[in-house]
Amino acid sequence: MPCEFKLVRQVEFPDTDKSGFVHFSAFLRYMEAAEHAFFRSLGQSIWTKGINPPVGWPRVRAGCDLQHPLRFEDQVEIHLLVREKKEKSIAYEFVFRKLNEQPAKEVGRGTLVVVCVTRDQGKMKSASIPPVIAEMIEVAPPEPLVPCP
Amino acid sequence: MPCEFKLVRQVEFPDTDKSGFVHFSAFLRYMEAAEHAFFRSLGQSIWTKGINPPVGWPRVRAGCDLQHPLRFEDQVEIHLLVREKKEKSIAYEFVFRKLNEQPAKEVGRGTLVVVCVTRDQGKMKSASIPPVIAEMIEVAPPEPLVPCP
Amino acid sequence: MPCEFKLVRQVEFPDTDKSGFVHFSAFLRYMEAAEHAFFRSLGQSIWTKGINPPVGWPRVRAGCDLQHPLRFEDQVEIHLLVREKKEKSIAYEFVFRKLNEQPAKEVGRGTLVVVCVTRDQGKMKSASIPPVIAEMIEVAPPEPLVPCP
Amino acid sequence: MPCEFKLVRQVEFPDTDKSGFVHFSAFLRYMEAAEHAFFRSLGQSIWTKGINPPVGWPRVRAGCDLQHPLRFEDQVEIHLLVREKKEKSIAYEFVFRKLNEQPAKEVGRGTLVVVCVTRDQGKMKSASIPPVIAEMIEVAPPEPLVPCP
Repeated sequence: MPCEFKLVRQVEFPDTDKSGFVHFSAFLRYMEAAEHAFFRSLGQSIWTKGINPPVGWPRVRAGCDLQHPLRFEDQVEIHLLVREKKEKSIAYEFVFRKLNEQPAKEVGRGTLVVVCVTRDQGKMKSASIPPVIAEMIEVAPPEPLVPCP
Repeated sequence: MPCEFKLVRQVEFPDTDKSGFVHFSAFLRYMEAAEHAFFRSLGQSIWTKGINPPVGWPRVRAGCDLQHPLRFEDQVEIHLLVREKKEKSIAYEFVFRKLNEQPAKEVGRGTLVVVCVTRDQGKMKSASIPPVIAEMIEVAPPEPLVPCP
Repeated sequence: MPCEFKLVRQVEFPDTDKSGFVHFSAFLRYMEAAEHAFFRSLGQSIWTKGINPPVGWPRVRAGCDLQHPLRFEDQVEIHLLVREKKEKSIAYEFVFRKLNEQPAKEVGRGTLVVVCVTRDQGKMKSASIPPVIAEMIEVAPPEPLVPCP
Repeated sequence: MPCEFKLVRQVEFPDTDKSGFVHFSAFLRYMEAAEHAFFRSLGQSIWTKGINPPVGWPRVRAGCDLQHPLRFEDQVEIHLLVREKKEKSIAYEFVFRKLNEQPAKEVGRGTLVVVCVTRDQGKMKSASIPPVIAEMIEVAPPEPLVPCP
């Protein structure tokens, strides 16, 4: 059962700032992109279709620790790991690795906690994770990372 | 009757890119910020409240010509001028001026054409500009700019 | 000789705004992403390496006409066409097509004019396009699009 | 001696996403905007001028906890508090308050840790905070917040 996902993307020009490096807020967007791709890999969308009532995933905690900068056109792997699955929330950890260096270099880590809400005509209400989603995700084993069972 | 509006803002760090200058897409955001501030100056919001049915303003044309770069912490004036007011659309021109130079220096120009739509439960449908808005806006005189009558 | 390039990308969540659709400024970022991928397809980088002096490409004109909105997770093809190649500038046209509709639907067009400058310690100076780049690009035939010779 | 700073800004349209609320990555940009305005309030720029060698402030940690969403045109106060001042780093806390509600409502908190580096021709090297800056900043008293001495 999926407990992790890897997304590779290339640093784009607007991700950088005057320092010449990637702006730190971009790491949060990278994390979210990996989360959304993870959901697509499960045949779902973070913006649910076909689940009644539809649910959303407000972010209640997000952060990153950055050890090394990223530059324009760097290849970055965003490695998502499911760290907690509760009745109404999921916690992810992310490892950022720069692939255009040998060996691949860890440049930072991130965390993201999202809660499940029903989104009924714009009104958000805390809700249990729909079984169809909860049953597809499991918590990743602690590091050193071993394959999910 | 208002035909123009000036917004001053300071270039922020994420507006810049690796080149050290403001990313060109930021000029479109600056234009929109001036348009929204213009609406607020009229007691309205671009995301209408109290107008039934509510209307929205999809952008059907946007562009800019840039002669000089902007840098971090530059003061930029975004001068909005109403260039056309039709039954269902408005065309704006924008003049970008760098104020932290003596005299203020024009650094570029932009255009924006927006159409009025009703936004009923997510469905957009072309619509006449609500009178309460249309009656508050008029077309700016051609340059050299003279005060609106 | 390359006169066109196609990039496909998927609409990401931060590209959208409160309207539910892609923010218009994102189309400029999409255009630039296609331009940069076009350069990479030629073995170059828009942020030149190995060319002396190094050159940059400030954007002096950018714009788009938008007929149909894009939504989260839409697949969008950004079709770049070289429209002009002068001594010191290149003009591109872009066609945006939504691929997750049958048949693919044109949703908008864009234009981008960039000029070549040397970037010597932050100082930009207008310059001729380096031959190694100029010799690799040619102007696309007028539409209806026929294959480049 | 300054240990805190308040910046008020209004939520802009591109800060929002399809959910109708402010995208979580925007909170990091809001935090940084407050930090940069704090430096300007001290007569400095985060992109130092007149300090030799020039210094920069890479972000090594950033995060936020979000309790309540923000919407388009909300007035948000970003309250910066200096939480640590070490030889080579500064830690800030931020409190986000929505002002267009009575009473003002705390909607989230953030943290930011920045390290001082010299930026010599693009090369970053860890460095002591220049005295001219270190001598102007002090750590804020613990909450409940009392005025700085």
